[in-house]
Amino acid sequence: RAGYSSDVEMESTSFVRNIFNGQLVPDNVFPFPSALTEEETQSLRALLDPCTRFFEEVNNPAANEKLESIEEATLAGLKDLGAFGLQVPEELGGTGLKNSQYARIVEVVGLHDLGVGISLGAHQSIGFKGILLFGTPSQKEKYLPKLASGETVAAFCLTEPASGSDAASIRTVADLSPCGKFYTLNGEKIWISNGGIAEIFTVFAKTPIKVETGEMKERISAFIVERAFGGVTSGPPEKKMGIKCSNTAEVHFDNVKVPAENLLGGLGKGFKVAMNILNNGRFGMASALAGTMRGVIIKAADHAANRTQFGDKISNYGAIQEKIARMAMLHYVTESMAYVLSANMDMKVTDYKLEAAISKIFASEAAWHVTDEVIQVLGGMGYMQEAGIEKIMRDLRIFRIFEGTNDILRLFVALTGVQYAGGCLKNLQKSIMSPLGNVRAILSEIGWRMKRKVGISSGFSLRGLVHSDLDSSAVQLTKAVDLLGEAVESLLLKFGTRLTDKQFHLKRVADAVIDMYAMAVVLSRASRALSLKLASAEHEKLLCWTWCHEAYERVKANLRAVKSSTWNQSCSNMKLISHAVVQNKGVYATHPFGF
Amino acid sequence: RAGYSSDVEMESTSFVRNIFNGQLVPDNVFPFPSALTEEETQSLRALLDPCTRFFEEVNNPAANEKLESIEEATLAGLKDLGAFGLQVPEELGGTGLKNSQYARIVEVVGLHDLGVGISLGAHQSIGFKGILLFGTPSQKEKYLPKLASGETVAAFCLTEPASGSDAASIRTVADLSPCGKFYTLNGEKIWISNGGIAEIFTVFAKTPIKVETGEMKERISAFIVERAFGGVTSGPPEKKMGIKCSNTAEVHFDNVKVPAENLLGGLGKGFKVAMNILNNGRFGMASALAGTMRGVIIKAADHAANRTQFGDKISNYGAIQEKIARMAMLHYVTESMAYVLSANMDMKVTDYKLEAAISKIFASEAAWHVTDEVIQVLGGMGYMQEAGIEKIMRDLRIFRIFEGTNDILRLFVALTGVQYAGGCLKNLQKSIMSPLGNVRAILSEIGWRMKRKVGISSGFSLRGLVHSDLDSSAVQLTKAVDLLGEAVESLLLKFGTRLTDKQFHLKRVADAVIDMYAMAVVLSRASRALSLKLASAEHEKLLCWTWCHEAYERVKANLRAVKSSTWNQSCSNMKLISHAVVQNKGVYATHPFGF
Ligand SMILES: Cc1cc2nc3c(=O)[nH]c(=O)nc-3n(C[C@H](O)[C@H](O)[C@H](O)COP(=O)(O)OP(=O)(O)OC[C@H]3O[C@@H](n4cnc5c(N)ncnc54)[C@H](O)[C@@H]3O)c2cc1C
Ligand SMILES: Cc1cc2nc3c(=O)[nH]c(=O)nc-3n(C[C@H](O)[C@H](O)[C@H](O)COP(=O)(O)OP(=O)(O)OC[C@H]3O[C@@H](n4cnc5c(N)ncnc54)[C@H](O)[C@@H]3O)c2cc1C
Repeated sequence: RAGYSSDVEMESTSFVRNIFNGQLVPDNVFPFPSALTEEETQSLRALLDPCTRFFEEVNNPAANEKLESIEEATLAGLKDLGAFGLQVPEELGGTGLKNSQYARIVEVVGLHDLGVGISLGAHQSIGFKGILLFGTPSQKEKYLPKLASGETVAAFCLTEPASGSDAASIRTVADLSPCGKFYTLNGEKIWISNGGIAEIFTVFAKTPIKVETGEMKERISAFIVERAFGGVTSGPPEKKMGIKCSNTAEVHFDNVKVPAENLLGGLGKGFKVAMNILNNGRFGMASALAGTMRGVIIKAADHAANRTQFGDKISNYGAIQEKIARMAMLHYVTESMAYVLSANMDMKVTDYKLEAAISKIFASEAAWHVTDEVIQVLGGMGYMQEAGIEKIMRDLRIFRIFEGTNDILRLFVALTGVQYAGGCLKNLQKSIMSPLGNVRAILSEIGWRMKRKVGISSGFSLRGLVHSDLDSSAVQLTKAVDLLGEAVESLLLKFGTRLTDKQFHLKRVADAVIDMYAMAVVLSRASRALSLKLASAEHEKLLCWTWCHEAYERVKANLRAVKSSTWNQSCSNMKLISHAVVQNKGVYATHPFGF
Repeated sequence: RAGYSSDVEMESTSFVRNIFNGQLVPDNVFPFPSALTEEETQSLRALLDPCTRFFEEVNNPAANEKLESIEEATLAGLKDLGAFGLQVPEELGGTGLKNSQYARIVEVVGLHDLGVGISLGAHQSIGFKGILLFGTPSQKEKYLPKLASGETVAAFCLTEPASGSDAASIRTVADLSPCGKFYTLNGEKIWISNGGIAEIFTVFAKTPIKVETGEMKERISAFIVERAFGGVTSGPPEKKMGIKCSNTAEVHFDNVKVPAENLLGGLGKGFKVAMNILNNGRFGMASALAGTMRGVIIKAADHAANRTQFGDKISNYGAIQEKIARMAMLHYVTESMAYVLSANMDMKVTDYKLEAAISKIFASEAAWHVTDEVIQVLGGMGYMQEAGIEKIMRDLRIFRIFEGTNDILRLFVALTGVQYAGGCLKNLQKSIMSPLGNVRAILSEIGWRMKRKVGISSGFSLRGLVHSDLDSSAVQLTKAVDLLGEAVESLLLKFGTRLTDKQFHLKRVADAVIDMYAMAVVLSRASRALSLKLASAEHEKLLCWTWCHEAYERVKANLRAVKSSTWNQSCSNMKLISHAVVQNKGVYATHPFGF
């Protein structure tokens, strides 16, 4: 089943998963993957032009923001463009795009209006994605045509007041009626994008279910719920920092009668459905944010080229040049991740969830950092609403939080990888999903599996896959992979099962892995540019070289740190410091004046 | 003349200036300075309570923001509190606070409402500070009483459309009338805080002046300008990302007749007046932002203590603990800088401009980072307006830009220090102020002055000044000072006069110096806590130890980098990358799809 990536982990070609083991498996990254036929490329192009024109000429981000919803005419235009059903098969009334094509379209959306992007994404990337991935033929036929045309809007209802990152802890319940014909749904969901305007909801709720032992347990199931069922109410739009035109609202389910046939993806399979929907949608966030960066970089380049201070264009000063170069690198990495990932998905690579998580983390932080620096390049003008950048900054702040906070996703990447390195996969599924599951017990069983010897190189070279001009960067990546394999192993040996709780360590491992995946995708992309002798090939070589140089330094520092005793001391101190601040309900150090 | 710190540089006790020379001069930092008598402390306390109560009970940040100005009743209350003339001598109707006292009061303002803080700061920290520092007795008598009571509001008018960081390039002109009785002022100022509501303006304009050679040159002079003079108009309030209740507006001067006696600080001395006003006001920004951090840390501690996910309070997870510990450290450093600096000023230390610049840089970045992480700790709630943090984040974004961008201030710190290390001071005054002045010529003359030998330790120990529990951190600081002295010297030897243009290098030097000053102030403060056996002494020791450990690692990395050939290569690459992006008016790398 394509949607359930975690079923196929034993023989994974995932680049990221394998580097935890010190193994460089290049298949999905080298050569730079592309999944589109010539025809698909042409049809994408044909769609891209009107889409770009629409966003340049019709959509008005400032007006949408002020209105706190998308302007009527814009909404109608988006529907005409097919933007509400980009990945719905054509026979069901959609545009039928592959992931790579979708990625390219949402890049345009992200460049122009992240609020619109979230509205569209909440609808199709998560709102009805469950139906697309897990729906039965009749569910698809019933719901997708109207959703694809935009006649109905969808929302994804997972989060609750007491359940955010810990999705397994939801309290909404769905009880099967004695007749077996419907479920009665009760619960409260919060911060639901499109929650106030949607007619169709993918809702996650606890259902009692008989497990193998014969006991009754509460397991999560997913349901397709129509507002028309009755008992569905939604709150007023939340007031937020940004993405103001995207509706965010509470949704209440009060004895909602959901027909049994609206169960989605199987009874008790709801957690997997939810994780797969999120996993499946992350590539879009990466490409949208690559678009955002592309847009703001234009503003920085323009200002730097035209602003004179101290007798020279500021683009001639090192401080500005460093900022712009870093913007270009962060954009290059993000864009590369987005298109490797979406191509991998189109190529039916099954295990891409670590790559998807990394792309989400990287893109959201890169876009934040880039936009922040664009403001800095613009000086005072950057702070003015008329420059249009402060809005983008406000819009961007949510991307590091929703669809999995970056902090939780880092733990997810590190723990999943560490467990894989431990060689125990299948039965760890649950723990993989939750950073605090029963990893402990299992890790203790697998001590004997550690076969890696410190310092033994993976022996793998990227020669032949990486253009020879980039040899030194390729060597950095292979060295980094060795270092990671060694570091993961020694952490497993040192902490055993307790590694699960070592979040300071796991964060550094995750940071190293993120840097390494970034190195890999740019090595692949710059190699392609050099081989094809693209006009920008030398530029891409510089981007790649410079990125890999710095990333490798960070990887070394992170992997050195986790083994250093002063670093470990520092982390223990931080635990104590934090404890004191929390106990004291705020700053604990005595004020210099004593009051 | 107290205001002109740069006249007394030869015999400077500045901690920061001296470390560029590899010299550790502890006088201003150790032991932790305090400038208040018991009586002054008591009167501060007496003022603090009503001030805190006022901000808790009367001031409404959300209402001010919505109104885009401060509520009438709040304004009246602030005036009653004496908040409009905190540092004006009592005999002129002010509150007569010392800098240390002022710092403590604005800390409360910064904790509650940065918009109000900027309104008050634009008025007294820059708006009429020139009159306080450089005014003649009759100017003071004429203007300060009404300004202190808040009957009139002041603004500081330096920035123009073509002149931001490069203040020397202003185009506003003031021509003396043939009769010598008045100046005619013409020009356009932009982004002036309080610009739309002020009656009294400190205005900087070019005036023709006969220089030593007998030639006529344009030099900047400062003027006290009343709106009542006629010809002064202001634009509508600018729409900004934050500090919305603080009025920002264009101010136009159209043939304004300014009486000759309203010249401020001497003909042609305007640039110095401007720099000294800014320099003199920076400590307030640091303490206000220490207050802001104190406030948001309370929110993070509260949320972390009460939010349960995955079966435990999130305050028990390392990822959250690291965030809170870093908040506490950044706050501790900022608060320490703010009170060392203000005490130094009260102690009549004359050369504190590098410390002031560092405090401004550090505080504005620390507050930004801390608040960003508080949002992250709060998860989705952090993005909601009702949590009140997103507003603080928006308010904070301007602090890294105005009153000298942090980038320009870094160059200022590095260049000033490097020049001092070169031993040539007096005649470099102008170049010091402008990062691109005639440093070149002078540096070439002073090659012979380099006397430092690589690797020779300054031999200085902080023993006796630093509590013995902090010995290891003190050793890190002294080693860092040695490394800096050596690095600066080798940069001077390598690049000579060209160092002025090496902004990549200067940034690393500045970053190292900022870290070192931060180490010094926390070493001093934690030593005091340990000596006094404060309840929080052990906690402060942890803050100090952990901060110094990480800061020292960064210092080493930064100073190693500037000498590394791969790092230098990386910088050359970045120049090329930036150039290509600027030339191409945006991203230059070819899109993976080619379109
Ligand atoms: C504008 C907006 C739109 C949204 N749209 C939707 C939507 O359409 N559908 C939907 O279902 N939800 C939606 N959400 C909710 C969003 O997905 C959640 O906010 C997000 O999952 C984080 O959950 P939380 O806010 O409850 O934070 P929490 O999970 O409470 O986390 C708080 C902090 O604790 C940290 N943390 C939690 N657990 C651990 C741990 N074990 N170890 C270390 N750190 C931990 C987190 O990283 C975070 O820093 C939206 C939210 C917003 C703000
Ligand atoms: C809300 C607000 C309130 C303000 N209040 C006041 C006020 O009350 N009074 C007043 O006079 N002004 C005020 N200002 C103006 C403010 O001080 C300026 O915005 C600031 O000095 C930066 O100038 P600039 O915006 O022109 O940027 P620029 O100087 O044009 O700088 C643009 C970018 O180039 C960089 N740069 C410039 N020169 C160099 C160089 N040589 N080397 C490397 N990098 C360089 C800068 O660091 C920055 O990143 C205010 C501005 C705002 C937004």
